[in-house]
Amino acid sequence: MKNANAKINALLIADTPETFVTRRIPDVQLVFGGMKGDRHFGVTCPADSRQSMYPKGTEILNRRQITIVSEEECQKIADELGVEYILPEWLGANLLLNGYPELTKLPMGSRILFPDGTGLICMGENQPCIFPGEVIQKHYEAKPKLAANFVRAGYKRRGIVCAVERPGKFLKGMKFVY
Amino acid sequence: MKNANAKINALLIADTPETFVTRRIPDVQLVFGGMKGDRHFGVTCPADSRQSMYPKGTEILNRRQITIVSEEECQKIADELGVEYILPEWLGANLLLNGYPELTKLPMGSRILFPDGTGLICMGENQPCIFPGEVIQKHYEAKPKLAANFVRAGYKRRGIVCAVERPGKFLKGMKFVY
Repeated sequence: MKNANAKINALLIADTPETFVTRRIPDVQLVFGGMKGDRHFGVTCPADSRQSMYPKGTEILNRRQITIVSEEECQKIADELGVEYILPEWLGANLLLNGYPELTKLPMGSRILFPDGTGLICMGENQPCIFPGEVIQKHYEAKPKLAANFVRAGYKRRGIVCAVERPGKFLKGMKFVY
Repeated sequence: MKNANAKINALLIADTPETFVTRRIPDVQLVFGGMKGDRHFGVTCPADSRQSMYPKGTEILNRRQITIVSEEECQKIADELGVEYILPEWLGANLLLNGYPELTKLPMGSRILFPDGTGLICMGENQPCIFPGEVIQKHYEAKPKLAANFVRAGYKRRGIVCAVERPGKFLKGMKFVY
């Protein structure tokens, strides 16, 4: 655990049934399972193609309760793709951090602790998939092949997925240690 | 994921309130949270001295639902201590595996899958503490300093703690992959 000059720059929720794209909210009460109303909320969840060892839809423990990206890594993805910026909304992120340039390298099982005692457990790197690439492509129509190129550009920069270890409230601007 | 000639050699439960020492049972139905009736059962649990970043007793996500040791590593601990054997009961283990000589090296987040589809997530190495050493000492009264020496002897051999990813039934003799 080291101190960091890191903070939450945006809080977002995926509460529109048709899309994984998130929208910004001013604050959120985290509970066990994540953010109520978010598409990934739940202490358990149905297995999908990421857990191909289980039949699709099987109820399993949810490691993807909260998705986190860092501004620094999003900018690296943007630079690699040759676009101005990548918004956390397009990646379906719940938290956008600033001051944490190597977020994706956080080892599985590590804690992220917030000053009010809220705790997250890193459950691993978020594997890049093609869907956020398609959203990025829509925002930069003139630039070809962004959807396909996103997977490579997002490798080791795509952020992490977390489970809630201890519930609490998240506010924009909140600092934390990791 | 690799195939292994590994199997469950004993199933055990800690269902006596006074002690963490486990007793053997023929089979068990795993649910989310672990084994009903076990002292570590629960999707959540109270924080203890292992999670000193939270006030003691705070409700947190339970990473210690199931404790696993391997026969090969238990024998290494016994050899190091100069005693004949170490029983999984004394370590408070829920599962004793055979054919998995480097169980404790399993990285956090790894899956252990059983043939009926039951799945565990490795939540890390079980940190050796002095209490199992005291139980070992009682069984080998003539041998001095076992309690103190156990911590060192158990280092990187003490097994792992797991969370239930997918419920199912465990039977003695069941083979699995890891």
